[in-house]
Amino acid sequence: MKIVTCIAPVNIAVIKYWGKRDDELILPINDSISSTLDAKSGANMCAKTTIMASPNFKDNKLWLNGKEENFDAVRLQNCLKEIKKRINPIGNKEDIINWNIHICSENNFPTAAGLASSAAGYACLVFALAKLYNIEGDISGLARRGSGSACRSIYGGWVKWCKGESLDGSDSLAVQLAPTSHWPDMRIIILVVNESRKKHSSTNAMKTSMSTSTLLATRAETIVPARINNMEIAIKTKDFAKFAELTMRDSNQFHAICLDTYPPCFYLNEVSHSIIEFVHAYNDFKKSTQVAYTYDAGPNACLYTLENNVSELISIINEVFPTSASREEYIKGIRVKTTELSQV
Amino acid sequence: MKIVTCIAPVNIAVIKYWGKRDDELILPINDSISSTLDAKSGANMCAKTTIMASPNFKDNKLWLNGKEENFDAVRLQNCLKEIKKRINPIGNKEDIINWNIHICSENNFPTAAGLASSAAGYACLVFALAKLYNIEGDISGLARRGSGSACRSIYGGWVKWCKGESLDGSDSLAVQLAPTSHWPDMRIIILVVNESRKKHSSTNAMKTSMSTSTLLATRAETIVPARINNMEIAIKTKDFAKFAELTMRDSNQFHAICLDTYPPCFYLNEVSHSIIEFVHAYNDFKKSTQVAYTYDAGPNACLYTLENNVSELISIINEVFPTSASREEYIKGIRVKTTELSQV
Repeated sequence: MKIVTCIAPVNIAVIKYWGKRDDELILPINDSISSTLDAKSGANMCAKTTIMASPNFKDNKLWLNGKEENFDAVRLQNCLKEIKKRINPIGNKEDIINWNIHICSENNFPTAAGLASSAAGYACLVFALAKLYNIEGDISGLARRGSGSACRSIYGGWVKWCKGESLDGSDSLAVQLAPTSHWPDMRIIILVVNESRKKHSSTNAMKTSMSTSTLLATRAETIVPARINNMEIAIKTKDFAKFAELTMRDSNQFHAICLDTYPPCFYLNEVSHSIIEFVHAYNDFKKSTQVAYTYDAGPNACLYTLENNVSELISIINEVFPTSASREEYIKGIRVKTTELSQV
Repeated sequence: MKIVTCIAPVNIAVIKYWGKRDDELILPINDSISSTLDAKSGANMCAKTTIMASPNFKDNKLWLNGKEENFDAVRLQNCLKEIKKRINPIGNKEDIINWNIHICSENNFPTAAGLASSAAGYACLVFALAKLYNIEGDISGLARRGSGSACRSIYGGWVKWCKGESLDGSDSLAVQLAPTSHWPDMRIIILVVNESRKKHSSTNAMKTSMSTSTLLATRAETIVPARINNMEIAIKTKDFAKFAELTMRDSNQFHAICLDTYPPCFYLNEVSHSIIEFVHAYNDFKKSTQVAYTYDAGPNACLYTLENNVSELISIINEVFPTSASREEYIKGIRVKTTELSQV
């Protein structure tokens, strides 16, 4: 019997992934860039996976957050199939390849609420499987088969998922642009507006965008390539104002594409809108860009800011929102979390 | 002394105008199509303008909704300047051109709430001035100088504002595509979600979109021209399903462009989102497209449907929304109005 346990953190995209050129292989239509959250502390958002392999297990089994799930799920099977191709028989003395496995995975944060739970989950699963079977080399392409953005959680710090060109997806991999230590005072504040599961799964919504949005091709072919270049420069030179503007514009454009989808997908609610307006007002007041927002497929905000702003910003956020009495029901749900980037 | 009184109705765009190629002349970057509401009945949304000209008036004066406003406002002056160029001295026996005027204009619906108040207002003003000075021929180009979309309210039924090509704007005019009688069972239901003035004036927001949205050029140059052709066919053939899908997609894309603007503009609130979801659910349930939504620069919905759906639809709308207790504060504000198209 062999047991491995891993944790993998969430990543927060600053240039968004939206749209696949190959649904089966999970190949995106544009590059994306994210930062990976710190997973050192149990307080932060991460997934934890334990895998046991034993010659005595009669079946393969899977538990997600304590609930048994179907082991035959397509994406899990795709991951396992690709992983088994990479197993080096010499590196595994025992007959472990033929043993059944039990997988237990849990998130310490809401699942499917637009907080990249599947990214952390699949990154963790693949990381644990790679450890179980002694797989060497890049495993971001394996994580991608579980959930596209999971490939970015394989690396720490600043990570780019290169869309790749080949039809088989062999070059659609994540690379680290810079380690966390490159920009040590960068912080992320998560504002949890709503923890419920999203109405539209990202996979389905992305597919509908691909087939109906008449603006998505322009975004993927023209706008994102320029933004990726500019974002790489902003990160490299630690130009916060440039980084922040690109981050906010790209978040807005991703949600614009969701609106241009037919029928449209709404992920932002009125509290999300208020947080966006607050961030612009705060930056205007400061006469320089001190904070950026970004939203994935849900209403919860991720704010990027530098360490010296964190305490003031959190105080103001806690002050500003409850003043609107009619919104109290939503605001009560906002949980503020601050986190450093990952040191993976 | 000479007095004229006119009324002019609101128009509801189905292919939206957003973005100017010339701010001064109010020349748009794309064609747009709308229907003009019926102004026969005082119950419907329209503007009413009375103009008095007298050799005894010491000053020019302007009242909007009972409040005196600045007569030197740029757009009013631009309208007057252009109108005076068109005056035929032979048609005006008296020295009326040199008399001062008093203008009283009022809307019977909320101003600046994204319900095309300025379109009706300027169309009415220009119509009244043209009557005062016996101006003949097309006056849509004159109305355009007051508020772009006002040019479409000059005609009844289905109207297209051709963006034009010339630099002086002489060919940026409205034309009637079809009279109301062409599609006699078409109805519009207005759902007033919020009557307050919008946060972002359309003029400023449009200007910010022009300078910051990286998707707007694709919309104006590629997407709208194809939609205009398809919409003309849908109206000509009275193909409601096609008409409705184009209307909804174009409304969504206009709001997508607002989101892609930096900083972003939000005109839709959560009630607007719910109405959109309701319309898609209703059409799905009916297994055919029976109703379309469209939103201008505000949260209020305009629904297009055919006469045979109106009573059922209004009953269901009144049932569906109040069931969500947490939204009651907004829902109370919804006023349902049904109207026919204009017979101007």
